[in-house]
Amino acid sequence: MERMDKQLAFLMEIDKVKNIFRQTWLADGNRKENDAEHSWHLAVAAVLLKEYAPQEADLLKVILMVLIHDLVEIDAGDTYAYDAKGAETKRVREEKAADRIFGILPEDQGRYFRELWEEFESYESAEAKYAHLLDNFQPLLLNHESGGLSWREHDVKKSQIYKRNERIKETSAQVWERMREIIDEHIRLGDVKEDMSDCME
Amino acid sequence: MERMDKQLAFLMEIDKVKNIFRQTWLADGNRKENDAEHSWHLAVAAVLLKEYAPQEADLLKVILMVLIHDLVEIDAGDTYAYDAKGAETKRVREEKAADRIFGILPEDQGRYFRELWEEFESYESAEAKYAHLLDNFQPLLLNHESGGLSWREHDVKKSQIYKRNERIKETSAQVWERMREIIDEHIRLGDVKEDMSDCME
Repeated sequence: MERMDKQLAFLMEIDKVKNIFRQTWLADGNRKENDAEHSWHLAVAAVLLKEYAPQEADLLKVILMVLIHDLVEIDAGDTYAYDAKGAETKRVREEKAADRIFGILPEDQGRYFRELWEEFESYESAEAKYAHLLDNFQPLLLNHESGGLSWREHDVKKSQIYKRNERIKETSAQVWERMREIIDEHIRLGDVKEDMSDCME
Repeated sequence: MERMDKQLAFLMEIDKVKNIFRQTWLADGNRKENDAEHSWHLAVAAVLLKEYAPQEADLLKVILMVLIHDLVEIDAGDTYAYDAKGAETKRVREEKAADRIFGILPEDQGRYFRELWEEFESYESAEAKYAHLLDNFQPLLLNHESGGLSWREHDVKKSQIYKRNERIKETSAQVWERMREIIDEHIRLGDVKEDMSDCME
């Protein structure tokens, strides 16, 4: 197979993420969003919110990370943020998926994408931290805009949201402050269940 | 309004492109794709097909361009590639949309996005040329993959496709060669109407 054939085969394979639906509703609350839309939204957000990222984060690398971070879900499916059972097998399912999907590409490009995905998963580099901030902040904003639909649907508790976002504040105190305000508002509205005392925060 | 408020208001406003549907069918032929999915697909393609771009094209800039190139369609709607009537009023509708939509952002960011969009539209810089190549190649690949659905639906002629893609070869002879092969295949299959003699190419 020619180099371009592999590149185009990969581009057609990843068209499938347009059919991998997440638990987050669109801002208008009419339907849930899919992985392609989510990844696009994170990439634009990466540009606009760069001032809240660690200074050393390389923007191009962050954008590439968020563009491809969910491709493994073509095989592994979307594991909802608060699905404890799914989380147990997530890593194994996703590694197998990464082998197959990135394996479609020419070797150099497949290795590069695989490394970017591993770096995202490791949540260690400045780029990975900022990418995770975006990956957590964007659905929270959509949940807020759509009236807390997804939180109500899944009976989500404050402690779960805090646990999931526990590392945001080390990346940006300002973004975490905004997230806390939004969560508090939805606790008052009854969309998120209060199960923590203030001293537990 | 605080700076972050404007940034987040913009991010929620552009959620609407997830509901702007194009005339291109997904690879599986099950439904048409929307602008967010299309823009995401172009951004990934920008990375993978960089070796076919003009050498001086800056990848980050190309990615930003393709991420935001269709935002004006929130107000202006999608104008189909072969809609001659829509094309007449396209520019005016899209400029008005750009004023409103990029105007939501903090002034510096709004100006930056507006300039990127204008640069894309001008089709002059190396980045704009590569972005247009991606914007033309991706739907062709999807039309190919979905069995020429969109071409048949709109009774598209070879001369229309050639006219629309007439500047691709100045950007990449290799990509244009591949596009020609695909078009020829769909002429043979009857998905695209032959209305040009070889000497007109």
